[in-house]
Amino acid sequence: MIELLGKLPGLGPRSARRAALHLLKKREALLEPLAQSLADAAAHVRTCGECGSLDTADPCALCSASSRDDGLICVVAEVGDVWALERAGAFRGRYHVLGGVLSALDGVRPEDLRIAKLVERARRPGVREVILALAATVDGQATAHFVSEHLSAIGVTVSRLSQGVPVGGELELLDDGTLLAALASRRAV
Amino acid sequence: MIELLGKLPGLGPRSARRAALHLLKKREALLEPLAQSLADAAAHVRTCGECGSLDTADPCALCSASSRDDGLICVVAEVGDVWALERAGAFRGRYHVLGGVLSALDGVRPEDLRIAKLVERARRPGVREVILALAATVDGQATAHFVSEHLSAIGVTVSRLSQGVPVGGELELLDDGTLLAALASRRAV
Repeated sequence: MIELLGKLPGLGPRSARRAALHLLKKREALLEPLAQSLADAAAHVRTCGECGSLDTADPCALCSASSRDDGLICVVAEVGDVWALERAGAFRGRYHVLGGVLSALDGVRPEDLRIAKLVERARRPGVREVILALAATVDGQATAHFVSEHLSAIGVTVSRLSQGVPVGGELELLDDGTLLAALASRRAV
Repeated sequence: MIELLGKLPGLGPRSARRAALHLLKKREALLEPLAQSLADAAAHVRTCGECGSLDTADPCALCSASSRDDGLICVVAEVGDVWALERAGAFRGRYHVLGGVLSALDGVRPEDLRIAKLVERARRPGVREVILALAATVDGQATAHFVSEHLSAIGVTVSRLSQGVPVGGELELLDDGTLLAALASRRAV
């Protein structure tokens, strides 16, 4: 058990031992419910065949919600990004999880990402816009470029998140690249 | 000397004592040159009557440089913001330093800022655009709004820095406000 706990992100061998002892001390309050919950997750959580997100249902709750706009598809790298956007309540359309970003260093190639499924979804009638919500990193922007080339033939509008000053950002504390981007994409008031 | 050093931002009474001892130990290498340099600064550095920045000349080097574009005025809160934008090499026009932002809490009122001078400068022939490069904080954006109302009568284009994902930004780590702003001001690829 200690060995397996130590494989969790953020836990080393030492904290795995502490966690194991804590679990054994709280057998009824923590150990048994956690064991049950992990077994449930293993049995029921699956990848949504439509968007690639995780849920107990397939298609997932976000793909089957009738209140969401089918005309907008928001493309993200990971399931965690869907959760971040949902926490912010920022978006009311559908999602598409690529499963990562292209990376020569980590050996992630286009065929490792769910791009073909995205193209298939974008071709459906009624889809107006695909929003590429990928990180403003080198790999994220390279992936956005690659995906937008694949979508350009379809005739759907492709857009990206704006780059600029984060909310609460002081000019003096920003990096040069963000200042350049914020100035270059300034908007009339 | 220790008392005065302790008034510098970032130095408390304890580090002021350390600094004083260090200065006295390095009399020729540090104490005398620093005394000279502070005296020079006191005698020669002045506020530019045009833009409000600091320089040994009035008008300052940025206002008198013939290679810069007179048609663009970038409005910032503090002299430190001019330095940040110059470090980034982001801007080749003229600057205007307001001397702060409006703040009910700190008692900064419109007449405490160099707004009248900005309006005078924006009225000059040849000025095409005023860029409000103020922080994406509540006070910064309230100031931007106030200044843009004063400029709207002149007929000059007023723009703001874009808000959005900072360069290198991962979606998962962004605050909700930034995600909302980045989605709302997304741009077609």
